[in-house]
Amino acid sequence: MKLYTYFRSSAAYRVRIALNLKGLPWEAVAVHLARGEQRAPGYRSIHPAGLVPTLDDNGLLLTQSLAIVEYLDETHPQPPLLPADPAGRARVRAIAQSIACEIHPINNLRVLNYLTGEMGLTETQKLTWYRHWVDTGLAAVEAQLAGHPATGRFCHGDTPGLADACLVPQIYNAQRFDCQLDHVPTVMRIVEACEALPAFQAAAPGVQADAE
Amino acid sequence: MKLYTYFRSSAAYRVRIALNLKGLPWEAVAVHLARGEQRAPGYRSIHPAGLVPTLDDNGLLLTQSLAIVEYLDETHPQPPLLPADPAGRARVRAIAQSIACEIHPINNLRVLNYLTGEMGLTETQKLTWYRHWVDTGLAAVEAQLAGHPATGRFCHGDTPGLADACLVPQIYNAQRFDCQLDHVPTVMRIVEACEALPAFQAAAPGVQADAE
Repeated sequence: MKLYTYFRSSAAYRVRIALNLKGLPWEAVAVHLARGEQRAPGYRSIHPAGLVPTLDDNGLLLTQSLAIVEYLDETHPQPPLLPADPAGRARVRAIAQSIACEIHPINNLRVLNYLTGEMGLTETQKLTWYRHWVDTGLAAVEAQLAGHPATGRFCHGDTPGLADACLVPQIYNAQRFDCQLDHVPTVMRIVEACEALPAFQAAAPGVQADAE
Repeated sequence: MKLYTYFRSSAAYRVRIALNLKGLPWEAVAVHLARGEQRAPGYRSIHPAGLVPTLDDNGLLLTQSLAIVEYLDETHPQPPLLPADPAGRARVRAIAQSIACEIHPINNLRVLNYLTGEMGLTETQKLTWYRHWVDTGLAAVEAQLAGHPATGRFCHGDTPGLADACLVPQIYNAQRFDCQLDHVPTVMRIVEACEALPAFQAAAPGVQADAE
């Protein structure tokens, strides 16, 4: 499998974690977002909208990180990244989507660039924006996790899965923007447990071949 | 089943469509977002983050619209809202997420309110923002659909499913903000096919009990 990736992309980072948790061999093809490589004709022929990641599974091109992780879970069931019961699956997906649909889209690179470009906001306003959505979004995730009987060492029980694969990249990005994280102790405790695992360590932005 | 809903919420609208496609009986509990009812203690005890929808399935509280639809598909498999094959499932989820993770989050009510409130943008700037993300986001969805062999009368084949349940509410909202839609003919052709079905008609904002 070939993963079109950018070291700092949260969405690509999620898929890197999932591939590593599954123990699947994969090859990275770097698409440098900050240099605009996602808009070059070469990558546009892979992903017309110019987003990362794209997973190439033997010629089948897959997009959208959560859809890719579900695909990996269906085609390579062991170890599972979603629980077996519908209620548990719904809980894990809801936590993942609280990050992937409520926090990350509002704060990704193209949105931030549009705010300071076309919308004329200052860098300070951009940081206020970023931290506001991380702050409220992670508080919502903390509420999903803290005190819930299904929360274990990881987001759902004692094995890492889809929700953890979304949580760790979001915290990496929050820390890069110096967000305050004291209000989400359960989140931080789980992230620490994840970061002790080789699958997460090998997916981290800093150790990717395209890292700067 | 009890659905906490707001007539204009895209996310609630998706779940209404799914419930209707499944032919499941459900009761609506209105949460008036524009009046701030989602922040009242009563709803906060149902959904701490104060988002709609929440589905109450016999006491099990489910959040995040795509997770709810997947739950419905797992617990009430007929008619299926996702195809049977992993590649098809990945495609339908990717289309759904192109809407639910790339367009809608950037343009929902609380984000628009934050732009004109804390960020101090004008109403005109807000509309420019809204239309920009709808325009580029729907172009990406059109690229996923147009000319793809799996696209049929609906987003994937000739039966409506998860992707269609996301597409119709997004177009409803785009039309409400007078977005230009000439560049997405496949999208519009599919939306028209959906809107001919009773399941979609009964889920439309205008016919909900809380409609204004």
